[in-house]
Amino acid sequence: MNQPVRAPQQDRSRITRERLLASTLDILAVHGWAAATVARVAEEAGVSRGAAQHHFPTREALITAALEQMFTELIAMADTREALPDGPERIDIVVGRAVEIYTGREFKAALQVWAAAASDEVLREQITPLEAKFARAAYRMTRNGLDPDGSQPLSHRLAQATLDLARGLGLADTLTDDSVRRAQVVATWSEQLRAALR
Amino acid sequence: MNQPVRAPQQDRSRITRERLLASTLDILAVHGWAAATVARVAEEAGVSRGAAQHHFPTREALITAALEQMFTELIAMADTREALPDGPERIDIVVGRAVEIYTGREFKAALQVWAAAASDEVLREQITPLEAKFARAAYRMTRNGLDPDGSQPLSHRLAQATLDLARGLGLADTLTDDSVRRAQVVATWSEQLRAALR
Repeated sequence: MNQPVRAPQQDRSRITRERLLASTLDILAVHGWAAATVARVAEEAGVSRGAAQHHFPTREALITAALEQMFTELIAMADTREALPDGPERIDIVVGRAVEIYTGREFKAALQVWAAAASDEVLREQITPLEAKFARAAYRMTRNGLDPDGSQPLSHRLAQATLDLARGLGLADTLTDDSVRRAQVVATWSEQLRAALR
Repeated sequence: MNQPVRAPQQDRSRITRERLLASTLDILAVHGWAAATVARVAEEAGVSRGAAQHHFPTREALITAALEQMFTELIAMADTREALPDGPERIDIVVGRAVEIYTGREFKAALQVWAAAASDEVLREQITPLEAKFARAAYRMTRNGLDPDGSQPLSHRLAQATLDLARGLGLADTLTDDSVRRAQVVATWSEQLRAALR
């Protein structure tokens, strides 16, 4: 008779944990690194301070779990298996996806983490492997999208350049809404890629 | 008899101020936003706490002056009047200059400021006009460099894309030394620009 009682409890615990992590990313993205404390996150998530501390006894534990969550979400965005059309609009879709990854909430949260890690060696060592794993997923998605049959020698560097561009566009979007200008830059970039990969 | 005495004193005062601002940018770039306090900056600059507070009574005053200094340096980098060759190597030089702006100490300091401004409306309002002025200078340099006689309709968007790419490369360089990969991405993009602007 224990099973039916324990299962919902585990579910509640999992949901609470997920809510805390989602709130941590929201707070990082909107209020910055220093604001992401257990107390503030608990409040944002509508979870009692005690319950939050049960899951994450220290700020470090919370931040570590949130970083893993952030990179898991970024990798999931990059790992999409959605089919691409064969025509030239394929390039626009691939570039659009790359840019989407770098202009979302996860990137804004990641930017706070990167800025903090610039002066925090422990944090830097913690995120470097996660960041590398994400970078590989984003590269794979972009290169396979630009050059599905691997026939274009330029596609390796062009995929990298596309991700660098997307990162730069993401950074330009952090202070002001840059979406109108960005759409034009993305269109120009896709046009260049189409010419280079013809 | 006052003049010879007063002049060196003004010089000393100006030099102290400049040292404090240079140290603020160093600390921002290397140790991050929170570390840039009057006390820490005074120590780094080898200036007494009292002298530092004479110039900058509050952290806000120090940060405001340092931001102006940072953007002045960024604009000076973008406003270079150095002559460009006429041949195709012109494009490499222009792209190289754009990338240099975004991979220097000033950009690393600016990144800390941007990250802090994402959650600080007062700071955001303070830096937005400075950032816009810098963006215009960087755009002018890049567009004039890519298209000196203004004959290329694509040069407007290509100059923007080049700066977005440069910004993304700068961000990629904050956690690890990315110079080897960057050189290859820059070469690939310069090749694309040469083809597009032929």
